[in-house]
Amino acid sequence: MPFTPPIPTLVAEGAHVRIIDQTTLPYSIQTRLLTGLDAAAVAIRDMQVRGAPLIGVTAAYGIALALAADASDSHLEHAISALGATRPTAVNLHWALARMRQRLAPLAPTERRAAAWAEADAIRAEDAATCAAIGAAGVGLIAEIAARRPGPVRVMTHCNAGWLATAGAGTALAPVYEAVARGIPLEVWVSETRPRNQGLLTAWELREAGVAHRLIADNAAGLLMARGNVDIVITGADRIAANGDTANKVGTYLKALAAAAHGVPFHIAAPLSTVDFACADATGIPIEMRDADEVRTLAGMDAEGGIRRVRLAPDTTPAANPAFDITPAGLIASIITEHGCFPPERIGDAREVGQHV
Amino acid sequence: MPFTPPIPTLVAEGAHVRIIDQTTLPYSIQTRLLTGLDAAAVAIRDMQVRGAPLIGVTAAYGIALALAADASDSHLEHAISALGATRPTAVNLHWALARMRQRLAPLAPTERRAAAWAEADAIRAEDAATCAAIGAAGVGLIAEIAARRPGPVRVMTHCNAGWLATAGAGTALAPVYEAVARGIPLEVWVSETRPRNQGLLTAWELREAGVAHRLIADNAAGLLMARGNVDIVITGADRIAANGDTANKVGTYLKALAAAAHGVPFHIAAPLSTVDFACADATGIPIEMRDADEVRTLAGMDAEGGIRRVRLAPDTTPAANPAFDITPAGLIASIITEHGCFPPERIGDAREVGQHV
Repeated sequence: MPFTPPIPTLVAEGAHVRIIDQTTLPYSIQTRLLTGLDAAAVAIRDMQVRGAPLIGVTAAYGIALALAADASDSHLEHAISALGATRPTAVNLHWALARMRQRLAPLAPTERRAAAWAEADAIRAEDAATCAAIGAAGVGLIAEIAARRPGPVRVMTHCNAGWLATAGAGTALAPVYEAVARGIPLEVWVSETRPRNQGLLTAWELREAGVAHRLIADNAAGLLMARGNVDIVITGADRIAANGDTANKVGTYLKALAAAAHGVPFHIAAPLSTVDFACADATGIPIEMRDADEVRTLAGMDAEGGIRRVRLAPDTTPAANPAFDITPAGLIASIITEHGCFPPERIGDAREVGQHV
Repeated sequence: MPFTPPIPTLVAEGAHVRIIDQTTLPYSIQTRLLTGLDAAAVAIRDMQVRGAPLIGVTAAYGIALALAADASDSHLEHAISALGATRPTAVNLHWALARMRQRLAPLAPTERRAAAWAEADAIRAEDAATCAAIGAAGVGLIAEIAARRPGPVRVMTHCNAGWLATAGAGTALAPVYEAVARGIPLEVWVSETRPRNQGLLTAWELREAGVAHRLIADNAAGLLMARGNVDIVITGADRIAANGDTANKVGTYLKALAAAAHGVPFHIAAPLSTVDFACADATGIPIEMRDADEVRTLAGMDAEGGIRRVRLAPDTTPAANPAFDITPAGLIASIITEHGCFPPERIGDAREVGQHV
């Protein structure tokens, strides 16, 4: 039975789109109705939706919402440009927008509205299918460990690449959910993922799905690997270069280094659309620098149950806030895609497989 | 001119001892009067004082405060035991207590009170001198980099091993303060150091001392090293084994791995009292596991200027909170002590030098 998210991350509602506003998670579950281009762009830019696949799906619906107001050539290009400018690193965003343009640009404006909605629906359905295929491709890595020895398989992840980040079962967590569905005992090490603490989303979504987990500070990953408390690391990706170098949430690289030092297999799970074959290697991947106040402040729940942002350092404290880092292909055991697992240097094979399905 | 802390971290006040209560930093500067053994033990256990050297100094005064109430043999042993039980990893604590016992146990109870106070004063003065000597021993490492190329030397540190952690200029930051005093341009990358965020103390004390710095999430260290933005890493230590393996604040090891991957020299700065020659290697060093709520909650300043602890994850979220990790000797370029810089595998030489000064 395919994994079904406890709550849909994005769902059509009449002529509009309803999303979970992830900025209030894990403290309160709020949804938000996106009624036009601006709302869709804000949702992506302000990380109301996040996770590379879900960003792509949301951008596709953003085009559909934009064309509902104005289906002209110029407005189509304006919408693609506005949505494309929201987050610089995630390649799925540009992939989804390019696909929408390819489908819609040749059509007459009168035909575009229905076609845009249908194409966005298709992208969403394909994302759910892709997640399921990633889970099926990666579950064997967990099953192999379970077969070798008793006790739960200890999986470490970083950031949030689960059902909250997609329209399906997630990417990095898809093999985890598939393993749980098959009755394989496991437990997930969830790293906090400062500065935006997306690990708290992972802890929340694992609890919602009934999967055993433990939260840790990002700093604890090295000790846990050195002590033999981690069997496998699986993270998502925001962009993968043609040689397998992978950009993912800042801190991923430190986990990959520690995994390499202790012989722990380190895997990336991502749809093939995350691979940017135009980037020969990581030098072509821009790294988004985000607002320094993300480092100087933090939101949590106060004693009254409200969400409150507290200040950790004065706003005059200089700070740097790179959002991603690069894990070189040499540290990656395999890239788990919807077409199977590939050594990073052979990720090009996934494209060939993909073209023949 | 030797470095003088802007505010004394611990100072005698009549028959009592006044400390900076570091639990309210960097949001408000509050001091606390320790009037007896219990207050001293609480101050160490609850991290009102922190940093291995300052813990040792505080423990010594804790003995003096205990003997003021009861100078009997049994109360001396009770005080040593109570103070020794507060923090399991820091060896300076046990070193200071052993020194107090050695000095005081042979004396008649009537002689102990004055001797205890004098011995604690001596330990404090020696700590300040030790910091100055560490600064003098380590400044050459920074000066060498400055001499090779223009621009500020980019020093990365972790946790807080500055003047706030000692009775002097600090350990890891002593070479930094000495370099600044010599007019060497530099800038410090300050990592937040989750879960207790002692990096915020480092940012605060560097600002108080007028030293350029930038705050980062712990996760950013790998990217910064990969980009060539770090020239040298210097951290403190909580315990160093005889072979040079070093226990320090959790997350230190990840920085050491990243430094090794990018040819960035990684140094430990610590007084010789941090070396536990009874531990052959790191397997003999216990790692303190602290309350999981340190991971699930965080304190910051609210909009009204008060300190407020916010909840990041429900208290039902399972969490693990190791306070330290181990950096193997092989990743350490040198250990900077008050007797000079030593390759980790030759830290035993520092003891021999120390016995001849």
